[in-house]
Amino acid sequence: MSEPGLFDEVLARGGVRAAVSDPSWLRALLEVEAALARAQAKVGLLSAEDAATVAAACRPDRIDAGELAGRAAESGNPVVALVASLREVAGGSVHMGATSQDVLDTAAMLVARRALDVLLDDLAGAADAAAGLAREHRDTAMAGRTLLQQAVPITFGLKAARWLVALDEAADRLGRVRSRLAVQLGGPAGTLGAFDVVEAFAAELELAVPTLPWHTDRTRIADLAGALGTAAGTIGKIARDVTLLSQPEVGEVAEAAPGGSSSMAHKRNPVAAVSALACASQAPGLVATLLAAMVQEHERAAGAWQAEWRPLRELLTAVGSAAAWLRQCLSGLVVDSDALARNLARLVSHVDAGVGASAELVDRALAAREER
Amino acid sequence: MSEPGLFDEVLARGGVRAAVSDPSWLRALLEVEAALARAQAKVGLLSAEDAATVAAACRPDRIDAGELAGRAAESGNPVVALVASLREVAGGSVHMGATSQDVLDTAAMLVARRALDVLLDDLAGAADAAAGLAREHRDTAMAGRTLLQQAVPITFGLKAARWLVALDEAADRLGRVRSRLAVQLGGPAGTLGAFDVVEAFAAELELAVPTLPWHTDRTRIADLAGALGTAAGTIGKIARDVTLLSQPEVGEVAEAAPGGSSSMAHKRNPVAAVSALACASQAPGLVATLLAAMVQEHERAAGAWQAEWRPLRELLTAVGSAAAWLRQCLSGLVVDSDALARNLARLVSHVDAGVGASAELVDRALAAREER
Amino acid sequence: MSEPGLFDEVLARGGVRAAVSDPSWLRALLEVEAALARAQAKVGLLSAEDAATVAAACRPDRIDAGELAGRAAESGNPVVALVASLREVAGGSVHMGATSQDVLDTAAMLVARRALDVLLDDLAGAADAAAGLAREHRDTAMAGRTLLQQAVPITFGLKAARWLVALDEAADRLGRVRSRLAVQLGGPAGTLGAFDVVEAFAAELELAVPTLPWHTDRTRIADLAGALGTAAGTIGKIARDVTLLSQPEVGEVAEAAPGGSSSMAHKRNPVAAVSALACASQAPGLVATLLAAMVQEHERAAGAWQAEWRPLRELLTAVGSAAAWLRQCLSGLVVDSDALARNLARLVSHVDAGVGASAELVDRALAAREER
Amino acid sequence: MSEPGLFDEVLARGGVRAAVSDPSWLRALLEVEAALARAQAKVGLLSAEDAATVAAACRPDRIDAGELAGRAAESGNPVVALVASLREVAGGSVHMGATSQDVLDTAAMLVARRALDVLLDDLAGAADAAAGLAREHRDTAMAGRTLLQQAVPITFGLKAARWLVALDEAADRLGRVRSRLAVQLGGPAGTLGAFDVVEAFAAELELAVPTLPWHTDRTRIADLAGALGTAAGTIGKIARDVTLLSQPEVGEVAEAAPGGSSSMAHKRNPVAAVSALACASQAPGLVATLLAAMVQEHERAAGAWQAEWRPLRELLTAVGSAAAWLRQCLSGLVVDSDALARNLARLVSHVDAGVGASAELVDRALAAREER
Repeated sequence: MSEPGLFDEVLARGGVRAAVSDPSWLRALLEVEAALARAQAKVGLLSAEDAATVAAACRPDRIDAGELAGRAAESGNPVVALVASLREVAGGSVHMGATSQDVLDTAAMLVARRALDVLLDDLAGAADAAAGLAREHRDTAMAGRTLLQQAVPITFGLKAARWLVALDEAADRLGRVRSRLAVQLGGPAGTLGAFDVVEAFAAELELAVPTLPWHTDRTRIADLAGALGTAAGTIGKIARDVTLLSQPEVGEVAEAAPGGSSSMAHKRNPVAAVSALACASQAPGLVATLLAAMVQEHERAAGAWQAEWRPLRELLTAVGSAAAWLRQCLSGLVVDSDALARNLARLVSHVDAGVGASAELVDRALAAREER
Repeated sequence: MSEPGLFDEVLARGGVRAAVSDPSWLRALLEVEAALARAQAKVGLLSAEDAATVAAACRPDRIDAGELAGRAAESGNPVVALVASLREVAGGSVHMGATSQDVLDTAAMLVARRALDVLLDDLAGAADAAAGLAREHRDTAMAGRTLLQQAVPITFGLKAARWLVALDEAADRLGRVRSRLAVQLGGPAGTLGAFDVVEAFAAELELAVPTLPWHTDRTRIADLAGALGTAAGTIGKIARDVTLLSQPEVGEVAEAAPGGSSSMAHKRNPVAAVSALACASQAPGLVATLLAAMVQEHERAAGAWQAEWRPLRELLTAVGSAAAWLRQCLSGLVVDSDALARNLARLVSHVDAGVGASAELVDRALAAREER
Repeated sequence: MSEPGLFDEVLARGGVRAAVSDPSWLRALLEVEAALARAQAKVGLLSAEDAATVAAACRPDRIDAGELAGRAAESGNPVVALVASLREVAGGSVHMGATSQDVLDTAAMLVARRALDVLLDDLAGAADAAAGLAREHRDTAMAGRTLLQQAVPITFGLKAARWLVALDEAADRLGRVRSRLAVQLGGPAGTLGAFDVVEAFAAELELAVPTLPWHTDRTRIADLAGALGTAAGTIGKIARDVTLLSQPEVGEVAEAAPGGSSSMAHKRNPVAAVSALACASQAPGLVATLLAAMVQEHERAAGAWQAEWRPLRELLTAVGSAAAWLRQCLSGLVVDSDALARNLARLVSHVDAGVGASAELVDRALAAREER
Repeated sequence: MSEPGLFDEVLARGGVRAAVSDPSWLRALLEVEAALARAQAKVGLLSAEDAATVAAACRPDRIDAGELAGRAAESGNPVVALVASLREVAGGSVHMGATSQDVLDTAAMLVARRALDVLLDDLAGAADAAAGLAREHRDTAMAGRTLLQQAVPITFGLKAARWLVALDEAADRLGRVRSRLAVQLGGPAGTLGAFDVVEAFAAELELAVPTLPWHTDRTRIADLAGALGTAAGTIGKIARDVTLLSQPEVGEVAEAAPGGSSSMAHKRNPVAAVSALACASQAPGLVATLLAAMVQEHERAAGAWQAEWRPLRELLTAVGSAAAWLRQCLSGLVVDSDALARNLARLVSHVDAGVGASAELVDRALAAREER
């Protein structure tokens, strides 16, 4: 990834952009071909020398990515041209028994894992910030709000603790999905029965071993999509809260580095929260696309498989970017205790036991976090 | 549910229709109110007598559902009127400390559980049928097909084994979600800190105990939606395969009881597969709606919560109906071995090791099933 | 529609519920069969007596709707059983040359038109209310807000004028779609070439004449869905504005009849705006479902057609209900001029020409409305 | 656009890739700033010299796109940095009275128009090919198919005529949307009342004049999205038909240049149809995202506006690519008359008047095309 696109700093932000970039994909495709040869050598289908030759050929700097991309239309995917290019160097030891989809699907798992690692790191950063706010404001009373009306008192700590729990739950879901990312190796019609190769292949790449090739069983992709959609919704909820609390008429929080306006010097836009919302709101439609693409014909699909590539990349980008923005938003979030008190004063006649109970709930949430 | 609606036998089929019906919802709402009183009695907040009075009041036949429904607009949900009606009989012991959303969310969990139980039963039935086909046709060679073109030989058993694995994976996901369905009990702003009540309440209803009230942390709903979407995609994939294999020019399978046509006596429509597809294809958009509704403001949302009710019911209905149709479709599916052989003959010069390998994969899939 | 379902007063509100109900569908199906016979009589394919016999049979009170519904599963739709029932009375003159989809699609157009008429009436009511607010508050200065921050002054009239223009644009789109609703009459494989019958049939029902039968050309349904989605987005935008302006910390508007809370007597929930949002947010996912269902095979589809029925009904219900709520929300909306001025005072040093310009824009919007 | 990305030849195909590329966006942004200055000069707000200076500064080769992109995060969009860069050269005459969204929205209209022009050209090419097939095979009998079962005879010409009508209808919708693309010019809070400037600005860019600034009235974007979704569905339907007719067991059509397989020399994959399907199926989810993003707060939104940029680009790309593939698919499509006859023979006892009627419908469709 040389330089960012025009909207990338807003909508394809942070480490996820590199993780899902073309160079990252190319690297993954090559790792897969090399791992396949090594696995085949391990079970004796290939000599160690031939596997080494394949691995040596699988270096990104030896591949003309542009040419590869340009030839992808002939066969409908970029792997056919990649294999041809590798075979020029390493001969028939390349891609033995595999089909294009084996390589592309396995590479997609590697790309997804890289993107998830970035995403999980940002979610953890955001959760840390939320935990800090929960601890610090454990007892800071404020107005609880329902249907955008003031309801009864809570503490700011409880609000932050709820963000924390939701973030941790979303991360747990993603973590479970991450551990289920599996190799694909079935050959042209998914009949590759030699599971010793599959197991060696999976060991090389530290991916899971599926029960069967999953060329048209897309539950893994769907599961990944669902967990990303859940994370996006969680991020969106928190970001929406921040934009609402940042309204000048409410004034209870401010981002550490709000954005300015070229024409209105007094404005303090919650740019990180706004951008997190913009990114997160891409997710539901993309999840729907990936779920709809599960209806894949017979042994390998006529269109629905290819339909996954772009929305999967977009979805990883969107949720990864949303998490990066949310981490920035929550890190150093400034809480205005005077404003909290002032707004709560409207409710003064309604004070209930909410403040003490809120503080106990904060303890509960923080304790749950310790146990993860 | 007295009688079915005009499209219900097609699109709201089987046990799921009753599970998500208004009477089922009403029953769930009443179970929740009764369980809350019992739980409060268990921890000493209420006398046993008062709890019994509440429980006695919580009988569907005492409630005028129509009146309840009619008054729901005033407050935006049907619980306010329900509580008023119960209090006429059982006084202030009803709904103590709770908010409408506590009751409605917990009832939604009960309704979802009932619908999931029906769905899981139908998925298991469909998987059993697929396992039977896999065993029976372990070695029956046929043409594998990719991009709707003939590729290399597989066995019909492998095709059925792949259906089986995907169905079991989808069911596993739903099972995990089912076990995470949790009570909601937070009071008006989610500050109810008395977790002994929450735990007793959860024990009464055999639901999970959440870390915090989850009024605006909708990861549970999202997770449920994602797992339902995954199941729908799996069902759709299998049903699509059946419609394709049932084409007269292919003729490899036929449903046990194909549908007729009023005007064309020769037609043998794969009605169950077609209907399963129609039901399954409702899911992606509904999942997107539920994910988008996760962005819920502050302590309780201004619109996004209410936005969940209908799509959740529709989604349970759609996926439950799809599963019922798929079970019917696969049960007694007639495989025409002559047609399999005839179509495979086109590929005769391409015979590879696929048949033997396919059979081994069938064994692997059936063994994995044993271990579940 | 005897009595409302548990959530109907919130999510299936107003006249649209009756318009898309089972009785309304049954009536439409019968109108279509009667119109077909009359059209065939008009061009001489049937005697006037036979057409009258058919028309006489097509009375809802002669049909057992429950039985019809119950038999729909056999053939995959309710028309086959309906035709059989009618033929018992009126013989072979019923449904001559037609296929089930002809009748169901044409009936769907009638149902859609009824629902659109209710929806357009409510949109017009909401637009009238917006126009009234625009006129009344043409010069009432308030803080303009961007990114939920105060920006520069506008007038409340301009805000209302923008609501007005968007509502009128959404209504225009729906009006264009309404005028394109067309009969379907193609017979089993869409080969019915006798366009004199089609024209007479269309004239009977006051629907448009398509170029060809459109059994698998679903641009009409897609167009309808798109226009409904646009209307929903417009309604959602306005309702969101009202919920934000109703926040107690902002306090610039209040609904005429805000909802109460059972536990918090001080609350004044903007129930109509909240409910409008809940309804409107159902639309995008349903539109996606209908668009995805456009991929219909050959002459009539294997699943995608049946997939339209429920989401189309849900979409009409959701948008119709949203419009009913919005009309209620805007009718009698109370504007607090003191609050407008108080909040604007924060911006006092930034006063620009916005107020005068806003007023001129109000005039422009109202003039545009006159010209419609 | 230097070289294609790894998946671009499949999923971002043809002219649309350049039309929505970063350079195209940058050019559009600069055209907008130049047009604004010229328009202001025309009504006397700026001297002709100053307008010329601005226009001269607005040349892509003077702008460091990478720097622009890199600075977009500070303010949440790339226009603020662009304006700063232009002002270094042309001073205060740049961007007078405008807000970033004015420039970005208007540029989006220009980009959309370019993409629509490419798309409409490909749709017209596909429609021409369909018209040719309709004419040539006006009387070529084949089996009509419903629910993927053989029904009654039609002609291949009728099938192609239906494709034609649907393509023309989709193009008509897009054409109407194209003519409604409008300038945006409202200033920070949409209060710019000087409609003489707006009119001159629109004349410069050949865009429509809106009734009011439409910063948060996104009916235009929704309308565009809906029409693109409709076109995608139409393309998907035709491509699905081609993949089904290309099945070896059916064998009625073949693409002029089917794709090969690296491992299976006998395969003739309908790559263009498969890729068209893959592209078209991206659309419904993206339309849902854009519809959901219509809920934009107050005068300018906190997230929902930024949420449009990527899905709009993706949607234009997907539908444009689908159209390019479909044109390729239908151009030179080989129809196997022997196969048509052979498959029809199964139905020989069911021959009806469908063939003659089909031919008449072809004439009707071709005549309707003449009248467009």
